[in-house]
Amino acid sequence: MQIAMIDDKILSADKLEPAYLDRGTFFGDGVYEVVRSYDSKVFALEEHLQRFANSLTEIGIAGVDIDRICARVQKAFKTADISNAKIYFHITRGSQLRNHIFDASLKPNFFLTVTELPDDTEEKTKGIAVSTHPDWRWKRCDIKSLNLLANVLARQDAAQKGCSEAILVDENGFITEGAASAFLAIFGQTVQTAPLNANILPSITRKFTIKAAKNIGLELVEKSLSPQQAINADELFIAVTTKDIVPVVKFDGKTIANDKPGKYTKLLIEEFRAFTK
Amino acid sequence: MQIAMIDDKILSADKLEPAYLDRGTFFGDGVYEVVRSYDSKVFALEEHLQRFANSLTEIGIAGVDIDRICARVQKAFKTADISNAKIYFHITRGSQLRNHIFDASLKPNFFLTVTELPDDTEEKTKGIAVSTHPDWRWKRCDIKSLNLLANVLARQDAAQKGCSEAILVDENGFITEGAASAFLAIFGQTVQTAPLNANILPSITRKFTIKAAKNIGLELVEKSLSPQQAINADELFIAVTTKDIVPVVKFDGKTIANDKPGKYTKLLIEEFRAFTK
Repeated sequence: MQIAMIDDKILSADKLEPAYLDRGTFFGDGVYEVVRSYDSKVFALEEHLQRFANSLTEIGIAGVDIDRICARVQKAFKTADISNAKIYFHITRGSQLRNHIFDASLKPNFFLTVTELPDDTEEKTKGIAVSTHPDWRWKRCDIKSLNLLANVLARQDAAQKGCSEAILVDENGFITEGAASAFLAIFGQTVQTAPLNANILPSITRKFTIKAAKNIGLELVEKSLSPQQAINADELFIAVTTKDIVPVVKFDGKTIANDKPGKYTKLLIEEFRAFTK
Repeated sequence: MQIAMIDDKILSADKLEPAYLDRGTFFGDGVYEVVRSYDSKVFALEEHLQRFANSLTEIGIAGVDIDRICARVQKAFKTADISNAKIYFHITRGSQLRNHIFDASLKPNFFLTVTELPDDTEEKTKGIAVSTHPDWRWKRCDIKSLNLLANVLARQDAAQKGCSEAILVDENGFITEGAASAFLAIFGQTVQTAPLNANILPSITRKFTIKAAKNIGLELVEKSLSPQQAINADELFIAVTTKDIVPVVKFDGKTIANDKPGKYTKLLIEEFRAFTK
């Protein structure tokens, strides 16, 4: 008899709940998105759904109706009735007994949570510390997949060093991005960040940050930075859906600028917020 | 109210079954093993448990009693009563609302299945076809983690080309290993395979294959091969727990040797089987 065991409990394999046979668990075979609301208004949902559709296509999960996903997100958000909410959702390829090879007829699993966002005022006004970590992630970080163990290990290591984010450095000594954020620097009146490629998520917050930077008259340079270059920047910040722009005031223990959020970073935060109204 | 949604069903987030909040699904935050039995005897369980313990340590999942895992494997195997069984088990860091940062007090989740192994006689006597794919995996493939999307995509692509395994090629043009197997070549009386490092799983079947190779008088060279070198080998084969040694007779469409399992490969299969008695 084919059997399964959950902790100490033995059962027949055909009695398993589908959640235990999720390819998301066996392989990380799924993709996700995180969206947030500002004052009861979901921000950039269309952009997130477009990226979600791209991620699904890249890993070959077909037949997902994005309009239906949109309706689910809106229904859940309305039901939760949380003003500043974090909406997480993923789709996995489906549930089946473990086998790398999948059947195209498998029914994808959808999962979503709506939770309250913690207040980030202190991080915004004081800035955060970050630390660098080797970028151990896979080679298709442009796909927002559930293969996130490298991110978890880097962020946990950062947290143990008292840092709020891990900044990932590739084999060539260049910063790709944060483990859960885009990473940007300001030199004079120029914003610099790594160019988008297969090693970097096409961050939606990065996109709106670049728009904000242009609005306030900053130049943009898409070129990778080394940690040493980052330490010498006038200002550093991360960009992430749940917190938009957060100033970085310590980088690997080195103080950036005067240990205070920089003037352009503060202007960018204001400009970004205007998009969310 | 914090809520969750599973397909179209909305529920309170605190009513979610732990299986839906498994860090294994959110992040692939867990490690696994696959063990098999031959004629009602589990093979190399101690080695697999040792590697499992190493994987747990590497990702910082503490407090797992390996003796208890061993007892569970044996109990499940006995209950299933399958002579040639595949035993899969994983441990994830635990279940919690999604957050990269984890609490050390989280209780790990254990999951296991015992299923019947399909008969592999035909693969063994006729050999298999394999195809090469870029190695998109993360940089710690020495850890047997649940981050396996790159493996899934490569194997699925191989299957669509009519191949039984995907052989992964790194950025420098060298073969690391199969997406779910070790990869070995024979030149004259020498077995060649990539050396163990952070990009390669310390395969237990590889270890016993090397022992078998020494027993039959073959030399061992641990040096990475390019696909072109592989095509020019006298014999090729893969080594994997569920099938031990399987001859490769087609590599990216090119016929290896005479499209038949090689003589040393056949000797290795016999020698390997002696270990399993």
